[in-house]
Amino acid sequence: MAKRFFGRSFSWAWLVCIPLALVIVATWNTAAHAQEDAITADNVQFVLDNIWVLIAAILVIFMNAGFGMLETGFCRQKNAVNILSKNLIVFALATLSFWAIGFGLMFNEANPVFGMGNFFLSGLSTTEPYAGNLTAPVFFLFQAAFAGTAATIVSGAVAERIKFIDFILFSILLTAISYPITGHWVWSGNGWLGNLGFFDFAGSTVVHSVGGWAALVGAAILGPRLGKYQDGQINAIPGHNMSIATLGCLVLWIGWFGFNPGSELAASASVPYIAVTTNLAAAAGGVAATVTAWIMSGKPDLSMIINGILAGLVGITAGCAVVGYWGAIIIGLLAGILVVFSVSFFDSIKIDDPVGAISVHLVCGMWGTLAVGLFDTTTGLFYSGSIEQLISQVIGIVAIGLFTVVFSAIVWTILKSAFGLRVSAEEELKGLDIGEHGMEAYSGFLKDTSDMGGVA
Amino acid sequence: MAKRFFGRSFSWAWLVCIPLALVIVATWNTAAHAQEDAITADNVQFVLDNIWVLIAAILVIFMNAGFGMLETGFCRQKNAVNILSKNLIVFALATLSFWAIGFGLMFNEANPVFGMGNFFLSGLSTTEPYAGNLTAPVFFLFQAAFAGTAATIVSGAVAERIKFIDFILFSILLTAISYPITGHWVWSGNGWLGNLGFFDFAGSTVVHSVGGWAALVGAAILGPRLGKYQDGQINAIPGHNMSIATLGCLVLWIGWFGFNPGSELAASASVPYIAVTTNLAAAAGGVAATVTAWIMSGKPDLSMIINGILAGLVGITAGCAVVGYWGAIIIGLLAGILVVFSVSFFDSIKIDDPVGAISVHLVCGMWGTLAVGLFDTTTGLFYSGSIEQLISQVIGIVAIGLFTVVFSAIVWTILKSAFGLRVSAEEELKGLDIGEHGMEAYSGFLKDTSDMGGVA
Amino acid sequence: MAKRFFGRSFSWAWLVCIPLALVIVATWNTAAHAQEDAITADNVQFVLDNIWVLIAAILVIFMNAGFGMLETGFCRQKNAVNILSKNLIVFALATLSFWAIGFGLMFNEANPVFGMGNFFLSGLSTTEPYAGNLTAPVFFLFQAAFAGTAATIVSGAVAERIKFIDFILFSILLTAISYPITGHWVWSGNGWLGNLGFFDFAGSTVVHSVGGWAALVGAAILGPRLGKYQDGQINAIPGHNMSIATLGCLVLWIGWFGFNPGSELAASASVPYIAVTTNLAAAAGGVAATVTAWIMSGKPDLSMIINGILAGLVGITAGCAVVGYWGAIIIGLLAGILVVFSVSFFDSIKIDDPVGAISVHLVCGMWGTLAVGLFDTTTGLFYSGSIEQLISQVIGIVAIGLFTVVFSAIVWTILKSAFGLRVSAEEELKGLDIGEHGMEAYSGFLKDTSDMGGVA
Repeated sequence: MAKRFFGRSFSWAWLVCIPLALVIVATWNTAAHAQEDAITADNVQFVLDNIWVLIAAILVIFMNAGFGMLETGFCRQKNAVNILSKNLIVFALATLSFWAIGFGLMFNEANPVFGMGNFFLSGLSTTEPYAGNLTAPVFFLFQAAFAGTAATIVSGAVAERIKFIDFILFSILLTAISYPITGHWVWSGNGWLGNLGFFDFAGSTVVHSVGGWAALVGAAILGPRLGKYQDGQINAIPGHNMSIATLGCLVLWIGWFGFNPGSELAASASVPYIAVTTNLAAAAGGVAATVTAWIMSGKPDLSMIINGILAGLVGITAGCAVVGYWGAIIIGLLAGILVVFSVSFFDSIKIDDPVGAISVHLVCGMWGTLAVGLFDTTTGLFYSGSIEQLISQVIGIVAIGLFTVVFSAIVWTILKSAFGLRVSAEEELKGLDIGEHGMEAYSGFLKDTSDMGGVA
Repeated sequence: MAKRFFGRSFSWAWLVCIPLALVIVATWNTAAHAQEDAITADNVQFVLDNIWVLIAAILVIFMNAGFGMLETGFCRQKNAVNILSKNLIVFALATLSFWAIGFGLMFNEANPVFGMGNFFLSGLSTTEPYAGNLTAPVFFLFQAAFAGTAATIVSGAVAERIKFIDFILFSILLTAISYPITGHWVWSGNGWLGNLGFFDFAGSTVVHSVGGWAALVGAAILGPRLGKYQDGQINAIPGHNMSIATLGCLVLWIGWFGFNPGSELAASASVPYIAVTTNLAAAAGGVAATVTAWIMSGKPDLSMIINGILAGLVGITAGCAVVGYWGAIIIGLLAGILVVFSVSFFDSIKIDDPVGAISVHLVCGMWGTLAVGLFDTTTGLFYSGSIEQLISQVIGIVAIGLFTVVFSAIVWTILKSAFGLRVSAEEELKGLDIGEHGMEAYSGFLKDTSDMGGVA
Repeated sequence: MAKRFFGRSFSWAWLVCIPLALVIVATWNTAAHAQEDAITADNVQFVLDNIWVLIAAILVIFMNAGFGMLETGFCRQKNAVNILSKNLIVFALATLSFWAIGFGLMFNEANPVFGMGNFFLSGLSTTEPYAGNLTAPVFFLFQAAFAGTAATIVSGAVAERIKFIDFILFSILLTAISYPITGHWVWSGNGWLGNLGFFDFAGSTVVHSVGGWAALVGAAILGPRLGKYQDGQINAIPGHNMSIATLGCLVLWIGWFGFNPGSELAASASVPYIAVTTNLAAAAGGVAATVTAWIMSGKPDLSMIINGILAGLVGITAGCAVVGYWGAIIIGLLAGILVVFSVSFFDSIKIDDPVGAISVHLVCGMWGTLAVGLFDTTTGLFYSGSIEQLISQVIGIVAIGLFTVVFSAIVWTILKSAFGLRVSAEEELKGLDIGEHGMEAYSGFLKDTSDMGGVA
């Protein structure tokens, strides 16, 4: 009976599987539906990646205010309008030239040496993923901000004597052609330096050294400001507004939290780590430069505190994502010491760089790029990079440096023969503000005009 | 045997469905649980929307620093404290009046002409979605920042001669009543202009033109600064601090990345696209104004670089989410050219606007709003807007302009009869800082006092 | 036949369960896989939490620029380089000392009085959740920014007479030892004040009062600036640059949107509410101080508008997440009134605080902490806090105050006997910029040197 009951009655029992099957089909459909129409975790991560890098791009663009205030403050009052104008228009120019040409040369993957396509952002979706999860617009904006940074670096080193038109044209060419080509070598998907193993996370070399080399060549070809090196003496020419210079440094510090952590090009829980190594290096650089300058000159020099912080920031830029805390500290410390001696060095060879841009961006950019091959990612204390990595780093530094120097020398030379690079001695003494822009920066303040025929 | 075995033994086999069923029920519960208690993708998107618009609101609030530095720098030293005071207190006033009254008038959907409810944010949940996914607090903060912007625009145009109390009272009324009513027409759920099809994504008209109209009426009623138009001559009155003016421009540029992309009122992968059109227009505006001014006056004028960038930003504000890259470039270029001629125009009709606010915000705000009806969203090159759209845009511009002009005229007139709008001629010559605030901005600096009896 | 059919044929039908089972197993695996490898909503929330608090940390770090500009602008030109140097180096020092020692003392949970471990961030994962969803790096960066704020507050109160070396050493000790210990009491997982029920959401007491107490002790031990209190008179010593002081206030306002909303230590839809209470209090504080100063002195004083806004911000910091809108308004209003009278009070007892830091941070910090016990979270209008809460708040204020006063007194006294706290009278009259740093802030501007032998 029981058997019979089971044998007969329960042989129907499989029918309970029908509702189960319906349940499963329903679940299956829901899941499929979720994949297609509703919000999925993947989609939210996609949005978050794009929003975060947008915010990082905004922070990097804010660096234009930092560079503008820093460089203006470090120069003389009579040239303030000129420097402000350069630093303001340069991001507009970089935006347009990088949109038109630079981005395509840099990120199109036509060949390992330069891109050839996507000019004017043509042929790229505005909403689909383009670089990892990033859409083309946000990736472009972030990279355009970087291109602008390279151009801005030049501004400070050639300040107080260059003609406005020359700086404008050089900036256009740098951001349209030179920066994108060397950038392509490292940061495009198929660049030859990247393929070689050269590593530069956020651009110690790709951005800062490139700006620094262009600045060095410009400053060398221009020659020093009148009165800077006289009778075998190096005459300090003090900046006119240390308040805005310090503000500029703090804005740059803030902007670097977009520059380095944003270079992750995605939102992840490891992004803040990059901000911490960046901050430790900045702090170490500032303290090291302060102490070094204090020991050497007997007083803590505000311009050296500023440049030390920036040196630490430039130094950590290449390795911020891979070094340990101690590595970050050491990179910053050495950058802070380096910048003090580097400023003296360039003065000793009569390369006149009013704001120290070459020491900060070129010298510390090279140091930071080398450091990637030197520091262990765990302890950060001792050498543990492979010799291959170190060689790759050296090759990258040299190759990018050579290209940028040659390109810059050619462009500066052409500009020199076309327009002349330098304002007249008379205009330089009176200040570029009146000569180049027909206005002064601080109307209503009484100026010390004793410098009109002299040094400062 | 086999049959029997299957027939008997396996008729029990359906029992394996029991654990399967348990599994399904468990899964089902888990899924249901996830919907109710745990974190879902929808919920994370909800949080992300609110966090992003909070960040955008912070960027817009930062624009107060931008306007403050820009306007102060463009005016004379002797009035700096007055302009700083106005630009600092105005966001406090806007916050309070928009919280008390403005927000309710603007976003409560009582009728198509104005809201009537939710004053003091009463009756609104602080955590539930209110506008799309946004909670009432974040939506309020973003909108309060916009209201403050409209009031701040007025500050520059009436600077250097208006009494402090008049500006304060006007700002309160503008942000409590006038701006919210016209804003309701466009941005509430049931405004009559919005229903008509008028499109103003981030406020070329709703914010910038409104501020511009109020500024124009104020400047017209106040009359020009002493010495500005004398003996048929237009005397340029140079600003006293181009460093902070330039800083102000760069801060505004940054703030606009909150203003426009934040107006999406949600986090999505298309938000950065808005930042890119915004940036292209700013760049194009800056370059166009620089070149235009250079051609017209022979020198690149820093104030025109600044105003060109702002003109491009105001111009793109209405259409930033719908125009193509080329459309953004063209809108910016034309805005940059327009602003140079507009500044001359208002001088020619003796409307004295110390900072160019009317040209930047009113003229380019109208241009940007019209442009929405003109540009194709794909190529951005040729006319493709419907004539209906263009008519809607014109109706919106005219209706909002008329309301704001009438409102402003009434309020300025009442204030004039109550307190007098203008400081005494003696106070104007000595500077409003001493007269209105009993202090000076730059104690310890020697001033050029030759202007005390004259123009600058 | 039918029966037989069913009995026999369908007894095999349970076999359909096999594909069902496969489906279920597949689904199960997918789900498990999702948990392990793919993106889940939990994971995106985790990333969002970390990214948001990183952004908040960046905003707080930006406050260094705010404090730097505010304090420098409020002091005299001849001491600008000195104040800029202090405010720039202090965040570098705070970063290093908080990384080395402070963080471990504050957040390691060794005992309820102080932590003992995790020095140099050792032993903490850089990617795993550490505090709630936050990783150790982002939590450290946010907290280091807070530590830096406490130290920066001191800078203003001791300005224009303290030796640079003393300020540096005090800052290191404050951020390495004192601030972390009292902070541990409240914000570590097992601090004795937190266990007692003391509530200070974002640090009215933990950060602002601590900085304020240290500042008060420092200002008292240092004594007033030469000429400040003479012949029974209180001589106002006007600041030299109200433009950058106002900029500083606006930057601090912006930074506070990181300070308070970031203190949620997570991204949630209730974060923006905190920004709104913060903003309402700031606005109310600014308006209240303006009106109070206007009534008392007959003119709206810009420094009081600035300090009123900051007073409102400090006041709301303790309760920003729990008070209602009206509570925020009242807290801000009272803070704005309080700060005006407090400034007069400290002058009357000859505590010379050049920037009003003690009134803003100590007095309003205490007020804000008390207010947490007073305001209903719903209406915010009437007393509804429990008396127990109020007692906890008082205990916290007193305990943290006592510790900080004793610690500061000891350190200032040791520094005094080691180096002397104060520059020479001659150096003070000439300005610390030349004496301490060998440079001046505004080279090229003509200065009013009539103050060299006198007051201002």
